[in-house]
Amino acid sequence: MGITVVALGGNAILQKGEKGTAEDQLRNIRKTAAQLAGLIEEGYSLVITHGNGPQVGNIMIQNEAGRDKVPQMPMDICGAQSQGMIGYMLQMCLRNALKQVGLNIPISTVVTQTLVDKHDPAFSHPTKPVGPFYSKEWAQERMEFHGESWIEDAGRGWRRVVPSPDPKAIIETPSIKSLVDQGHIVICSGGGGIPVIELEDGSLAGVEAVIEKDLSAEILATSIKADSLIILTDVNGAALNYTGSGETWLEEVTMSQLVRYYNESHFFEGSMRPKVKAIMRFIEHGGRLAVIACLDKAREAALGQTGTRIVAG
Amino acid sequence: MGITVVALGGNAILQKGEKGTAEDQLRNIRKTAAQLAGLIEEGYSLVITHGNGPQVGNIMIQNEAGRDKVPQMPMDICGAQSQGMIGYMLQMCLRNALKQVGLNIPISTVVTQTLVDKHDPAFSHPTKPVGPFYSKEWAQERMEFHGESWIEDAGRGWRRVVPSPDPKAIIETPSIKSLVDQGHIVICSGGGGIPVIELEDGSLAGVEAVIEKDLSAEILATSIKADSLIILTDVNGAALNYTGSGETWLEEVTMSQLVRYYNESHFFEGSMRPKVKAIMRFIEHGGRLAVIACLDKAREAALGQTGTRIVAG
Repeated sequence: MGITVVALGGNAILQKGEKGTAEDQLRNIRKTAAQLAGLIEEGYSLVITHGNGPQVGNIMIQNEAGRDKVPQMPMDICGAQSQGMIGYMLQMCLRNALKQVGLNIPISTVVTQTLVDKHDPAFSHPTKPVGPFYSKEWAQERMEFHGESWIEDAGRGWRRVVPSPDPKAIIETPSIKSLVDQGHIVICSGGGGIPVIELEDGSLAGVEAVIEKDLSAEILATSIKADSLIILTDVNGAALNYTGSGETWLEEVTMSQLVRYYNESHFFEGSMRPKVKAIMRFIEHGGRLAVIACLDKAREAALGQTGTRIVAG
Repeated sequence: MGITVVALGGNAILQKGEKGTAEDQLRNIRKTAAQLAGLIEEGYSLVITHGNGPQVGNIMIQNEAGRDKVPQMPMDICGAQSQGMIGYMLQMCLRNALKQVGLNIPISTVVTQTLVDKHDPAFSHPTKPVGPFYSKEWAQERMEFHGESWIEDAGRGWRRVVPSPDPKAIIETPSIKSLVDQGHIVICSGGGGIPVIELEDGSLAGVEAVIEKDLSAEILATSIKADSLIILTDVNGAALNYTGSGETWLEEVTMSQLVRYYNESHFFEGSMRPKVKAIMRFIEHGGRLAVIACLDKAREAALGQTGTRIVAG
């Protein structure tokens, strides 16, 4: 079993259609915590990572709404805020869930910076939409006076886009690894981590970008030499012909099969494709087992009873 | 030397009169990081804690400004956000400062919950003002429909007050201690920690309150068996007759002297009194050395050349 990185999808914290009140988030996180407690009862040492899309989006809306009174924060700082917020709720609820089953394991959230390459081509081609839709006038002002990139989404308005560079390293790896090696549970790399670049003099600086959280989960899992990577989402796993009629859910797949399906474009950008990319990278980098499964069946997924599983070799 | 808890005052992150832009905060934090790097160069193992008053105040203003679009978060969650935000900036800037002097020591921010007693008398007597001033009408609505407590500050308007319960334990002590024992630098208990109470069934729940950060720093220092507690602020240390003419700065003081001065009300609530209370508690609980000194002279303070020092025995 050993060390397992669990990557939680957005549904672990907010369900579609919910407004995102603290009560909404805590209710979902309590359910998620019960699932995670199940994995821990099975003997897994967990490192937990999670998305932050709706939360950081809300923080950005609040920043803008209050901009006449309070200076707006850049995206890296908004991301750091969301890590504190979600980490707190997760660590509290997971501690409570473990207590319910008689387990007392230290849990902590480590605020995480993820290194990206300042020469990553993503920086010249921002593609990741963030925040709500705005008017054309607003978008034009932001483009002209703030150097931001915006795109029009037919019928829905204009939306800011930011770069989505490839994660290269988790800066806090030594601390995370150290805690895991002591048997602690760690929550980290929320939202894929706060993107930072290394400047000429070797110092780090935050950048406005969004890192694909599943790819960061892979870097994290590989860096701490995790045995397995479990990506929990709102569907049963990866499927072939997902949008057509009669999709085929993948169960056990070999690396070569998965590479073929990936190249045949069975998996879509923004949903299953980055997850499949992450698990392929994890196995390539020496991981033993990678799973994509439904959050509600985390324990069964870990036991090999559900989800898409890819095993080394 | 051993393990030292450093409690940073508000001036470590924002100077009076600054608006609180990301640039303001990063500029101050860079200076603070250089001071902390000096301590680390002297061989101290640091656990760093900090205030969050202006930051959490700003987050609350943003929450309110955006309340028609995004659900407002309770204070515990706003506090967690501020821990992520400040922790990120501190860990990045301190890492950069250490790199400048050729040191490579793992640094991480641990999101921290602080346990308070649900029967603490503070809960029936909220006294700690939070957020900006509002009109009487606003205050009355919040009191009537949201059960909040508000007080009038003559001439400036109405302000919300929340309980300031005494900290009892740092929930993440095992993780913090484990990291420190591995030689890592830890940033934690920001803003005194996120206040949580233990419910009947043993589970934790967040509460809307503010914990005095210096008192939390003491609980933290005592819990991890720190050798010393250094409280860095914007004055040279504790003084007698501070507001009158001719204040006397205290240098080396014994415990019995300090207790006497404390009982003679030389130190004021909201400024030096909680700091003195914290260092008295630390020495009572077995700490060896406690110092209150100016942030700009952190290194000299640690070397015993400035500040108010109280030594066990």
